[in-house]
Amino acid sequence: MIVVLKPDISKKDETAVLKEIKKLGYVPHIMRGVERTVIGCIGDERTHQNLETLGSWSQVEKVVPIQKRFKLVSREAHKGNSTVKVGPEKVLVGGKKFQVMAGPCSVESEMQLMKTAHAVAKAGATILRGGAFKPRTSPYEFQGLGEKGLKMLAKARRETGLPVITELLSEAHAEMVAEYADILQIGARNAQNFQLLIAAAKTGKPVLLKRGLSMKIEEWLLAGEYVLSNNNPNLMFCERGIRTFETYTRNTLDLSTIPIIKKESHCPIVIDPSQGAGRSDLVVAMCKGATAMGADALLIEVHPNPAEAWSDGAQQLTIEGFAKLMEELKPFIAAAGRE
Amino acid sequence: MIVVLKPDISKKDETAVLKEIKKLGYVPHIMRGVERTVIGCIGDERTHQNLETLGSWSQVEKVVPIQKRFKLVSREAHKGNSTVKVGPEKVLVGGKKFQVMAGPCSVESEMQLMKTAHAVAKAGATILRGGAFKPRTSPYEFQGLGEKGLKMLAKARRETGLPVITELLSEAHAEMVAEYADILQIGARNAQNFQLLIAAAKTGKPVLLKRGLSMKIEEWLLAGEYVLSNNNPNLMFCERGIRTFETYTRNTLDLSTIPIIKKESHCPIVIDPSQGAGRSDLVVAMCKGATAMGADALLIEVHPNPAEAWSDGAQQLTIEGFAKLMEELKPFIAAAGRE
Amino acid sequence: MIVVLKPDISKKDETAVLKEIKKLGYVPHIMRGVERTVIGCIGDERTHQNLETLGSWSQVEKVVPIQKRFKLVSREAHKGNSTVKVGPEKVLVGGKKFQVMAGPCSVESEMQLMKTAHAVAKAGATILRGGAFKPRTSPYEFQGLGEKGLKMLAKARRETGLPVITELLSEAHAEMVAEYADILQIGARNAQNFQLLIAAAKTGKPVLLKRGLSMKIEEWLLAGEYVLSNNNPNLMFCERGIRTFETYTRNTLDLSTIPIIKKESHCPIVIDPSQGAGRSDLVVAMCKGATAMGADALLIEVHPNPAEAWSDGAQQLTIEGFAKLMEELKPFIAAAGRE
Amino acid sequence: MIVVLKPDISKKDETAVLKEIKKLGYVPHIMRGVERTVIGCIGDERTHQNLETLGSWSQVEKVVPIQKRFKLVSREAHKGNSTVKVGPEKVLVGGKKFQVMAGPCSVESEMQLMKTAHAVAKAGATILRGGAFKPRTSPYEFQGLGEKGLKMLAKARRETGLPVITELLSEAHAEMVAEYADILQIGARNAQNFQLLIAAAKTGKPVLLKRGLSMKIEEWLLAGEYVLSNNNPNLMFCERGIRTFETYTRNTLDLSTIPIIKKESHCPIVIDPSQGAGRSDLVVAMCKGATAMGADALLIEVHPNPAEAWSDGAQQLTIEGFAKLMEELKPFIAAAGRE
Repeated sequence: MIVVLKPDISKKDETAVLKEIKKLGYVPHIMRGVERTVIGCIGDERTHQNLETLGSWSQVEKVVPIQKRFKLVSREAHKGNSTVKVGPEKVLVGGKKFQVMAGPCSVESEMQLMKTAHAVAKAGATILRGGAFKPRTSPYEFQGLGEKGLKMLAKARRETGLPVITELLSEAHAEMVAEYADILQIGARNAQNFQLLIAAAKTGKPVLLKRGLSMKIEEWLLAGEYVLSNNNPNLMFCERGIRTFETYTRNTLDLSTIPIIKKESHCPIVIDPSQGAGRSDLVVAMCKGATAMGADALLIEVHPNPAEAWSDGAQQLTIEGFAKLMEELKPFIAAAGRE
Repeated sequence: MIVVLKPDISKKDETAVLKEIKKLGYVPHIMRGVERTVIGCIGDERTHQNLETLGSWSQVEKVVPIQKRFKLVSREAHKGNSTVKVGPEKVLVGGKKFQVMAGPCSVESEMQLMKTAHAVAKAGATILRGGAFKPRTSPYEFQGLGEKGLKMLAKARRETGLPVITELLSEAHAEMVAEYADILQIGARNAQNFQLLIAAAKTGKPVLLKRGLSMKIEEWLLAGEYVLSNNNPNLMFCERGIRTFETYTRNTLDLSTIPIIKKESHCPIVIDPSQGAGRSDLVVAMCKGATAMGADALLIEVHPNPAEAWSDGAQQLTIEGFAKLMEELKPFIAAAGRE
Repeated sequence: MIVVLKPDISKKDETAVLKEIKKLGYVPHIMRGVERTVIGCIGDERTHQNLETLGSWSQVEKVVPIQKRFKLVSREAHKGNSTVKVGPEKVLVGGKKFQVMAGPCSVESEMQLMKTAHAVAKAGATILRGGAFKPRTSPYEFQGLGEKGLKMLAKARRETGLPVITELLSEAHAEMVAEYADILQIGARNAQNFQLLIAAAKTGKPVLLKRGLSMKIEEWLLAGEYVLSNNNPNLMFCERGIRTFETYTRNTLDLSTIPIIKKESHCPIVIDPSQGAGRSDLVVAMCKGATAMGADALLIEVHPNPAEAWSDGAQQLTIEGFAKLMEELKPFIAAAGRE
Repeated sequence: MIVVLKPDISKKDETAVLKEIKKLGYVPHIMRGVERTVIGCIGDERTHQNLETLGSWSQVEKVVPIQKRFKLVSREAHKGNSTVKVGPEKVLVGGKKFQVMAGPCSVESEMQLMKTAHAVAKAGATILRGGAFKPRTSPYEFQGLGEKGLKMLAKARRETGLPVITELLSEAHAEMVAEYADILQIGARNAQNFQLLIAAAKTGKPVLLKRGLSMKIEEWLLAGEYVLSNNNPNLMFCERGIRTFETYTRNTLDLSTIPIIKKESHCPIVIDPSQGAGRSDLVVAMCKGATAMGADALLIEVHPNPAEAWSDGAQQLTIEGFAKLMEELKPFIAAAGRE
């Protein structure tokens, strides 16, 4: 860590800082600059005593961390790209083959789900998505079919052969959801619900971790660290848009996360343009961009009749729209060197 | 809801929209304007079929909601101010008396807690705060003492007579934490962890709901709705700073929430300037502002030795700093018409 | 506009609102809903009397605008795509051919500029960029070579045949800069400096309008409206990243602006990934994404020796890096149906 | 500056960095830490060669600046509080007396202005505000009366004895506006229009610099540096709300700027709650908070009939509302130790 002292402090105040740095387990190196004295502190910043507490002293101007706080998810920990094997079919996310996860926002009925599942499978999707437990801003909105929805997803898997991704909302449901699903999705609103991350990790199933609405990249990587440090290496990051001042789109999809996650981490990166845009008419362009920039997979909402969807209809593609998208993506998948 | 049609659409496309509006349970009223046709739709927007799904149709330009989505927390539901009784001592939050909740960020040891508890009680605090379960960005940081910490808080309550507020992190701990604490705090990162909100509500204990880092006012009120609609009327809102582009402070404390919550809701509003600023040298001015603007209570972090705190040292006041603050607040409490 | 009344207001208060709506030139249509009365107001919202002022009345809950406020830049005003002819060479931005504008952030010396200009021309750039007047956050930073820099740009144009884009900073320089440059760039910090926009428009030269750091899409389109309404149809929009909470990148490049500008406007859209990322190692992926999503052109910073650049070195590509990028872009340009 | 090297780089790559640091005029100090090598670089960071350019090298992980970039506005440059004398009446902003600037958003007519001016003077305002040149998001909105409006302001000054603050929009108008006004206001959208700042500074008149919508504190201080470094010491900072994700208010008023500006700078700080809230019903509470937190002055919009205002009616107080506010502020002004 770097501790910057205020100018014109007394020798005594400086000595007190040096003493405290040593007491907290760091070795201080003093550098006297043109205007300020700076103390480089050698030690492991990732402990709970990371010196930022010194910012409470009046003679300290600021404390600047140097180390990256994440370890196991970092590119330094694992030079190659990790791949995640999904389901008994061993669909590989993060490998040469580009994957598409598609399906309805919410599972609403067996008919709705089966129709969508068969259609997306036919169009080329390789993983089926569908929400059985829905985190809704209002308690008066549809909260999902629960276990009944999970059973429908399991049936759709049997019929189509597509492994299933679905959201985990509650620690109490971790075991149950893991029984039915091939990937546990942690939603944006729970991205720093660390107890849920730990519960998901412990099931051993692959975990897809969405970025929180106002999560910095480092915080996202550290949330992923909760999964890997609980002995589950099967982690995927998923960008789904961050909250900004812009109101034209529901969120601002931050596609720069693709090269950034590839640079900082070995884990796969998935893009969710449906949540990112919140508008189906923007989804197609965003899928093209994500593919070109090197995403490992897409997560796309598809519904047989978006106008009557029980959640987030405005952002779901129709079945025809999805099939057309899959066609249009082909040259971009090829240009990105994927299959 | 207001459905705005695109200009120059066909009669057939317009009729299809009208038909769908009726099918979804709304009564449409057409208004033909200078450039656009607008359809006012009468019905209850708070159901899961709220017409926003129509935004997926190409002839629809946009859908604008009109109703407020929150009910029980709203000022319309309850004209007067609600008050929350805390602990067997019945400390009243939201009444004439201004309340101050103070104590360490984390409970670290019995000595640290007792020293702080006695000091804040002496300086005039009326509720003791202290974290036993800590949500930490990194898995390598101090995660709290857990139940051991709760026991220390219970002891501090016995010795000082101050009721206790502490954070609830996991659904699985709701019963246990409720046994020891007088207020369950839901932290910013869990503000839309609806399962946790429901679990907290069901204990019957007062709930203090912090605003999420990027939570809009309406979303915050709707999260509160999860508490009231689960039969727990003892809700307090707590502003602790939102995430913005500014990096000088850890968060941007949004003091406009005080008049806004007072206008939209009957529930008390508490301000946490420690989290809001992330810097102890700004806490004093923020406490004065919050008091002047009509907050019902403050939540302040105090530590005997912030430089050696196990969490968030930079934002904790010293015991002397807290005593001085309490003195300086007096004229502002009086000017605000409080005791 | 839609005027939403508070519930439970008196008949007299409602009548007063209706009277004022008529006085301000609108025709009111009353809709009585389940909980609220809503008044649809027919009239032209784009005048200075747009009814939002009614929000100051206590019986009014909110006022919701319906119309789009931009006219001339809108897709409704011009169904086809506009193209902008640049320079005597008539390089066409917005047509079938994909354009690349490249060159140094600042013009530093004749040698630096000529070396870069020849190199980018050779690698396939079609327009030369270079700053002669630099808006710098601090008055102590390099402010650009001024007219001397413009002369160097003119020389580079003569030698390479590439038309030139350069930033206009001051109303007072509009004529002078227009004499040397083929495109006047309006920077992000001046995106709502309307006097400068008017001065730029009046030169008749093509104008490239960067999006302000916290500019909503609608505000950006309205700023463009200042150019078109001053009789200059040669407008290009340029996304260069918005300011968000994320600090990993300098700005968050919002690539969703590509489909959005294409949908809402007929003007070309250019992407500046150098400013967007602030880091040269992310520029390549962002160029691929922008190309795939349908951008009309890229604006890229290139410097012979970024480490010694006088401004923004961290985000400039080397000459070799740029040549490599141009090769890698080819399949994506083809996949996007461009030349 | 602190240059952090990537782990596992070669000796040769490290030597190259050291050589470049020296070449750019800094003295490097190497610190070898647990995981990373860090180079402290002694030199003046405020030159255009501030080493951040080294971030473009692949062996460099990041470059961290240490110095504050502002000089003349800093508390270090001037330990006491600066005061600004306004008008021939020498109204002192930044002294013991609390000042209130009030008046209409736009000057619309002589009658409207005179009525407001007399009313605010009677209620206790000490400076008159009013816009003659208006920066409007849309070219179709009212752009102000221009010089005619300035003449009305001058007349109002003669009649009421209140000095006048009005906005400067164009470099070309600096002399003219300075002739009529006692304070030149630089609006949020022009806060980094450095040419305008220089033109304003050169008139010698006091300058009130509003914070830009997405301006970091440091950038704001540096914009102020443009005024002081152009030999005009009469600078006031004015917070008017920043742009965030929240849509309930027009902007988020950041009252923490009061203690921050007081800590970092010697210049006065003024709060504009009208722009900050965009809603007159929140203005009163915000004025109380700003007063309690130590603001030197308030800038408040007042209009005889807000519903018919030609700009920003929703945020203007009525004359009666302003008089009531001035009464209610008294105990808070006293509690803050002001007159």
